[in-house]
Amino acid sequence: MTVASLGLAAKGAAPALAASPVGVRNGALERMADAIEGSAASSILSANARDIESAEQNGVAPHMLDRLRLTQERLAGISAGIREIAAMPDPLGEITGMTRRPNGLLIGKQRVPLGVIGVIFESRPNVAADISALCIKSGNAVLLRGGKEAINSNIAMTCAIRGALAAAGLPEDGVCLVTDTSRDSATELMRLRGTVDVLIPRGGKGLISSVVENSSVPVIETGAGNCHVYVDSAADLDMAVDILFNAKCQRPSVCNSAESLLVARSIAHEFLPRAFERLSEKNVEWRGCPETCAILPSAIPASEEDYFTEYNDYILSCKVVSGVDEAIAHINAHSTAHSEAIITRDHPTAMKFLSAVDSAAVYVNASTRFTDGGEFGLGAEIGISTQKLHARGPVGLDALTSSKYIIFGDGQVR
Amino acid sequence: MTVASLGLAAKGAAPALAASPVGVRNGALERMADAIEGSAASSILSANARDIESAEQNGVAPHMLDRLRLTQERLAGISAGIREIAAMPDPLGEITGMTRRPNGLLIGKQRVPLGVIGVIFESRPNVAADISALCIKSGNAVLLRGGKEAINSNIAMTCAIRGALAAAGLPEDGVCLVTDTSRDSATELMRLRGTVDVLIPRGGKGLISSVVENSSVPVIETGAGNCHVYVDSAADLDMAVDILFNAKCQRPSVCNSAESLLVARSIAHEFLPRAFERLSEKNVEWRGCPETCAILPSAIPASEEDYFTEYNDYILSCKVVSGVDEAIAHINAHSTAHSEAIITRDHPTAMKFLSAVDSAAVYVNASTRFTDGGEFGLGAEIGISTQKLHARGPVGLDALTSSKYIIFGDGQVR
Repeated sequence: MTVASLGLAAKGAAPALAASPVGVRNGALERMADAIEGSAASSILSANARDIESAEQNGVAPHMLDRLRLTQERLAGISAGIREIAAMPDPLGEITGMTRRPNGLLIGKQRVPLGVIGVIFESRPNVAADISALCIKSGNAVLLRGGKEAINSNIAMTCAIRGALAAAGLPEDGVCLVTDTSRDSATELMRLRGTVDVLIPRGGKGLISSVVENSSVPVIETGAGNCHVYVDSAADLDMAVDILFNAKCQRPSVCNSAESLLVARSIAHEFLPRAFERLSEKNVEWRGCPETCAILPSAIPASEEDYFTEYNDYILSCKVVSGVDEAIAHINAHSTAHSEAIITRDHPTAMKFLSAVDSAAVYVNASTRFTDGGEFGLGAEIGISTQKLHARGPVGLDALTSSKYIIFGDGQVR
Repeated sequence: MTVASLGLAAKGAAPALAASPVGVRNGALERMADAIEGSAASSILSANARDIESAEQNGVAPHMLDRLRLTQERLAGISAGIREIAAMPDPLGEITGMTRRPNGLLIGKQRVPLGVIGVIFESRPNVAADISALCIKSGNAVLLRGGKEAINSNIAMTCAIRGALAAAGLPEDGVCLVTDTSRDSATELMRLRGTVDVLIPRGGKGLISSVVENSSVPVIETGAGNCHVYVDSAADLDMAVDILFNAKCQRPSVCNSAESLLVARSIAHEFLPRAFERLSEKNVEWRGCPETCAILPSAIPASEEDYFTEYNDYILSCKVVSGVDEAIAHINAHSTAHSEAIITRDHPTAMKFLSAVDSAAVYVNASTRFTDGGEFGLGAEIGISTQKLHARGPVGLDALTSSKYIIFGDGQVR
């Protein structure tokens, strides 16, 4: 099937999903969870084994193989995640702000699904299940287009999901998979304005910027995180060392890890050697401004490019600044507007930083690593939005909904 | 100045606007209102007279001349609108959902401006003032690009507005005007992703679809309204005639006027002649399906194209349908998802229509003409959004804001 006809199939399924009671949607999720770790597990695992074999033959790097690999334990994890989504409250139907206008009209705003959600993702085969579950819970149809390395896994996974939809009395086209993994199929999906209501890219920087540049379908941009930690002159330096170590080293491959350290000049001589020593536990490479390099002889000189770079690795860019104002200006000029932290005991400085830093999540005295749907108490998430329209920060179920005005009259005219 | 450098100027002004207290923003609005109808009125009116003169020389149609024309009375109307915006509550700063997480982090969501709002508009010179006022009130900078017919009026108007900003202690680059009215300048504005946070086209269908197709800046799409009235078999036919007449004829040039009538077969023979007679007061032209034409001999046969057309004129497309299900299917296939109405006394039918019609505003027993920020009690509006992302229906001050998460810790790490 062409991408366009798959889009129409998903669009055809959307009204039934939108109209279904939450019990029916949750029933489909429970069946999905059961199938993925139960009846469909062996077919998913053998399809995944074929993907792993091809990847090994193609010389795919070990960390990529690990992303691609499914095990019975990982399937159980996926199923547990789906059951958590089933247990969440229904994001649909709520009517807010219902008021009576002077002419007697009753006007309110009702929460409704977006319609058809397109997702372009790369190698992780769990994405098909996670995203489908969030879309079904929120009454949306979804059109998935995964990477070619995971095609067999994705086919087996969506087959199990479609079976669960049908068994629950919902149209199986509520979840459609584009099996053509050529670049053309992604381009075609980006032009399905009118059929697909929103497009969410899940993957690396190249994928995201290609979608953002080329899509005529509205995009929710997620993922890029050039996150900063600013250690103020009034910081508790022990706390600052702990937070920096956590933000940089606990899991450097993820988007909410820190990439850049800014440090106030007045404490740089005291703080930098201590931070350097602590981060040397993980052999972190430092790339610094001239002042940093003067204090830390083993630091490499940083280029302007370094301050824009999301390393996702044990590398840290560092710059000595005069104080909070220069820190704010540097962050707003270089960050991807994901997550930034200030470490300070000074209240006015903290409040200034909170107010002036223009990012999705701004922290006082805590690690940037907390920017996550689960940590924020929002439940499962689709990603971290770094755009300002529609959704900012962790993208949960609410972001997969829209609203419509409903108006009750008894013959009103203007 | 180039469009890109004007964008950077606006971006440079945005933080000061975002940080300014609401009293300062309101002060700027009051000064704007005073200047437009007072100290700057004569320069605005003489600039407008030059625009009118060129337009007349170029043979511009009378109704376009009327849109372009400013008078002292119209300036007073613009100023009154700005004072209304000044009187509205501050859309910024509110912190919602502040909760303490189990690890002690306090996490809340704060309402913040979008940043820089780009607006591409056509001939009406009041748009520059109306939109600037909404943007300033919501702490945003704005980059305006108006049509060439109104260029002198727009220059004079923004000059007055920039003076008011400066007098209020705000950066005058909070309102920037692109004076190059070539097509290239519009294209350049559509590519300023990273500088401009959202782009709003205000004008005809051609402008809107060009922006939607070509902009890499996120767009809020407003305006297109192919609105439907469905007269159900259980309708009060007197009410139905009144509502149809109002929806079609009260002001046919606007987006919330009705373009298409759907009527249940069982009452078509009774209803259509009555509706036809009433609409003949305004010489409405009917374009109908074969059944319509059989009942109304003077109706012209409708093409499939007619059912997709927003006439903005005294023309109505009409189709006889079997009942509410066919009406819903026809609307979801043909409408621009703006505003649709059902006329019925049957409660389950009304609720089915409300739930299944996928448009920004869905009415029971009232005219589609009410879809308007003022009528909905939202105050001044930027337009009616027909998209599902970020803003749907009348776009008010709230839609010009985003949110950011603010997090207070005392040393938390993961």
